[in-house]
Amino acid sequence: MKFRVKSTLQYKVTDNSTFVFNISVLQSPTQSIIEETFSIVPAQKTEEFLLKDGSPKSVRIVSEENKSLTINYSALVDKKYELINKQNLTTVKTSDIPLSILPYLLPSRYCQSDKLIRLAQDKFGNIKNAYDSVRAICSWIHKNVDYVSGSTGSETSAFDTVTQREGVCRDFAHLGIALCRALTIPARYVSCYAYNLTPPDFHACFEAYLGGRWIVFDATHLAPLNGLVKIGIGRDATDVAVATIYGNVSFLSMEVSNQVQEEGFTPLFFEDLEEEGLTF
Amino acid sequence: MKFRVKSTLQYKVTDNSTFVFNISVLQSPTQSIIEETFSIVPAQKTEEFLLKDGSPKSVRIVSEENKSLTINYSALVDKKYELINKQNLTTVKTSDIPLSILPYLLPSRYCQSDKLIRLAQDKFGNIKNAYDSVRAICSWIHKNVDYVSGSTGSETSAFDTVTQREGVCRDFAHLGIALCRALTIPARYVSCYAYNLTPPDFHACFEAYLGGRWIVFDATHLAPLNGLVKIGIGRDATDVAVATIYGNVSFLSMEVSNQVQEEGFTPLFFEDLEEEGLTF
Amino acid sequence: MKFRVKSTLQYKVTDNSTFVFNISVLQSPTQSIIEETFSIVPAQKTEEFLLKDGSPKSVRIVSEENKSLTINYSALVDKKYELINKQNLTTVKTSDIPLSILPYLLPSRYCQSDKLIRLAQDKFGNIKNAYDSVRAICSWIHKNVDYVSGSTGSETSAFDTVTQREGVCRDFAHLGIALCRALTIPARYVSCYAYNLTPPDFHACFEAYLGGRWIVFDATHLAPLNGLVKIGIGRDATDVAVATIYGNVSFLSMEVSNQVQEEGFTPLFFEDLEEEGLTF
Amino acid sequence: MKFRVKSTLQYKVTDNSTFVFNISVLQSPTQSIIEETFSIVPAQKTEEFLLKDGSPKSVRIVSEENKSLTINYSALVDKKYELINKQNLTTVKTSDIPLSILPYLLPSRYCQSDKLIRLAQDKFGNIKNAYDSVRAICSWIHKNVDYVSGSTGSETSAFDTVTQREGVCRDFAHLGIALCRALTIPARYVSCYAYNLTPPDFHACFEAYLGGRWIVFDATHLAPLNGLVKIGIGRDATDVAVATIYGNVSFLSMEVSNQVQEEGFTPLFFEDLEEEGLTF
Repeated sequence: MKFRVKSTLQYKVTDNSTFVFNISVLQSPTQSIIEETFSIVPAQKTEEFLLKDGSPKSVRIVSEENKSLTINYSALVDKKYELINKQNLTTVKTSDIPLSILPYLLPSRYCQSDKLIRLAQDKFGNIKNAYDSVRAICSWIHKNVDYVSGSTGSETSAFDTVTQREGVCRDFAHLGIALCRALTIPARYVSCYAYNLTPPDFHACFEAYLGGRWIVFDATHLAPLNGLVKIGIGRDATDVAVATIYGNVSFLSMEVSNQVQEEGFTPLFFEDLEEEGLTF
Repeated sequence: MKFRVKSTLQYKVTDNSTFVFNISVLQSPTQSIIEETFSIVPAQKTEEFLLKDGSPKSVRIVSEENKSLTINYSALVDKKYELINKQNLTTVKTSDIPLSILPYLLPSRYCQSDKLIRLAQDKFGNIKNAYDSVRAICSWIHKNVDYVSGSTGSETSAFDTVTQREGVCRDFAHLGIALCRALTIPARYVSCYAYNLTPPDFHACFEAYLGGRWIVFDATHLAPLNGLVKIGIGRDATDVAVATIYGNVSFLSMEVSNQVQEEGFTPLFFEDLEEEGLTF
Repeated sequence: MKFRVKSTLQYKVTDNSTFVFNISVLQSPTQSIIEETFSIVPAQKTEEFLLKDGSPKSVRIVSEENKSLTINYSALVDKKYELINKQNLTTVKTSDIPLSILPYLLPSRYCQSDKLIRLAQDKFGNIKNAYDSVRAICSWIHKNVDYVSGSTGSETSAFDTVTQREGVCRDFAHLGIALCRALTIPARYVSCYAYNLTPPDFHACFEAYLGGRWIVFDATHLAPLNGLVKIGIGRDATDVAVATIYGNVSFLSMEVSNQVQEEGFTPLFFEDLEEEGLTF
Repeated sequence: MKFRVKSTLQYKVTDNSTFVFNISVLQSPTQSIIEETFSIVPAQKTEEFLLKDGSPKSVRIVSEENKSLTINYSALVDKKYELINKQNLTTVKTSDIPLSILPYLLPSRYCQSDKLIRLAQDKFGNIKNAYDSVRAICSWIHKNVDYVSGSTGSETSAFDTVTQREGVCRDFAHLGIALCRALTIPARYVSCYAYNLTPPDFHACFEAYLGGRWIVFDATHLAPLNGLVKIGIGRDATDVAVATIYGNVSFLSMEVSNQVQEEGFTPLFFEDLEEEGLTF
């Protein structure tokens, strides 16, 4: 299924500044980029880099002072996904988790899984099937945490959200990740373009490592899982910030969209996936 | 019912030091002190003070350096209590709470009720009877928080315990208080001598203001409520620390006991009080 | 010297709500209220209360739903102050601090003096005169913490401000108090009407207990110390919140002023008080 | 210069458990491993992995229950180092930092550089030479933070240490890293075997990216910089934990050593390196 994703970011640059953007679509076996443009007005040299598999494709821009800067990104993406029956989405034992995936078990700044172990074990420790566990985590978050724009900030962590019970997509993802790791299920943060998100914005969800595959989850229930176009993955939001800025810059505006380009797209929401996990 | 309470505290004083102890039994209409001794070895001048109704009766001692100091406290206390049917233990509206009790609605260092409002409302906000609400809070704490000696410290607060789910009597009390205040029920910390506590130690529980009376609760379920002998009340543990020490002092040992002095004592535990609240 | 202080607060009340205001001027030997009005539009029953010496004179109002509520407070106050030479503003030993003042040595939610002891001792522990110590604390805060409106919130504490180094008057006061207590100097929070404050707002400063008297300090350096009209004192901001509201209410607007009513007022700022502390 | 490093770790394994150890010496251009043994008693299958350049060489072991497990590691290492004059150790602009190094500018769980920016700028922002800045950071930490064994734990972060002012090597490194990042100097955590450390233990220090090279710093001043044998680098301690354990295991004992194997080793301490940075 083809999707057109776009983002436009505008800044006022006061002093010489360096930007690192993570807004480009990730190239992967299930996500092929048919065409892609990254343009800056006024024109500017860019450097692209990709630190490792799954990392977002970062772009560095260096801007002189006293400029208005507009970043335009657009991509046409062909996405495939697979549905895996939950019987195959079992817990992978710590002795068998691939070595490159072990770091996704560790606590991180926003996902302090080491402080949530008793809670996670109490609430979700007795569920037999691992896919059901992660779905139970998402249902619990969705039921207990209110989605409130602007309620949280750059210091809010899973440890806060589990009690304060309000947040945005980033907070929902962090809490989901932290609870998975507290159950010894590897989990990672995914930044993405979500189909039909209201209001339009960059989105975040998470993946859990079940039965030897990364399965996608979104505790906000706001977007169809098969309409997510991945930007990149990380241990938590730190690794995939939309923009990191060194210098003196004012943010002016942002537009984000993700539109399907073919007929016949059947959105698959959390509710539709009781028996099968989605991987992409 | 008469109880004999005793405590012995031993210290090694390196430099000139000042101690403030809160270990004396509170004199109150329901708690009469028949006899009481507070002695220090070697003998030492003491100053007693009581800041306001309900505050513990504090004792200040000033010790010279290079001493071993032993504090012996003993009291024979006659306690009365009343059982109030829960139909009378209703929520007191904020417009009707006596003005001197309003401070017990405010958050405090260890009872950050302002950060637990959504959680408290979600879990306990729909229970009709106020006594049932506070019992539900205590049952929830008892079920979800493990009593683990030494698991927490002087910085642990209700906000930590609600997620980390382990603690001692002090932490159980702080969480109960914080959840009550988050439901707009005044609540306060009570330090006490608990009958038959194992292992013997000073104890903490809390009171909630229901139907115009202070009703006692103990989420640890470790001690009969009608065997608690009060030392003092405060907004949280800060106000009633067993000992506050200014100087260079090593703690050596502590003994605490509370023994019934009459026949026929029928202990009333949390489980026994579904229909009636206990006030003393 | 006579001052006219005024405040006007406007709210939109959605549901039945209870307000507790701490905006009235404190009556004290050095602060006599010549005339005072507290009016509510539309008219409303009020209850006044004063919990203990120095506590603000609180006022409770109960409002029905669907009202716009305007609170008008105005007072004409005659203030006296005394200047005490710093030779007399020595440290009071913990053995000699009056018993009612000992609680102002304890840590509190926003003034975690127990976590600042090493820092306070390192920076200010070797200053001989206690008044000089507290002045050094204020100078350090003024030099190192930026006054930035809106930079902090209701959770910001001295432990945050000492590192993050931005805040408003409340944060400056909390940090000053915490550092004093970490030096074993009793300190308390003072809410007040400050003369000529720009922009106009309620103000906060603090008092330290030196040489047997409460001496006033203001690490913001924004207002003359002899122009402060006290509303009340507390262990920290929790005890003297301008308004505590139970119910569903929107804040609309606020006006605050403090104007001198006589000729010949000579403002005394922090800079003017190197040798003498001011008490009022 | 050749060093013999050794470590022995003993555990009692109650249930089937998985261990990940980061105790092997890192192979690098300046650190060649002449011989190396990693043995387990009783013998056990091991899996080695190295996630990326600089990551520690991790080893996974899976143990059955009811075993005593002893891990013995020993290596003979030849280390080279270079001294670089500080004139060449200048700040690398964010526009020029190699893309793979940019992540070492980001805040992490234990190094919340985003919360230390004002403090770092105030204290160290005006030092011209970047090497001097990082030395000033180390001197400040050494002067203001006390090395106190057991004073901190797995939750202690740079934000705590900057105020609480006590800690161990891990805390000294975290604070150094956080202050560097707050000055926009990339910095990373280094776990190592330190020559002659008293008492013997694994050690931690940090590297800052200056003039296009990673220069090593140790704010504890406890070990010569040219005697450090690297285990691995990470964003903070999370990435290079000596042992991560999944299962039910008791720690029994640990021995660690690093001894020079040639004559003529001249230790270079912090004090000796005013003009030149050491890279290895």
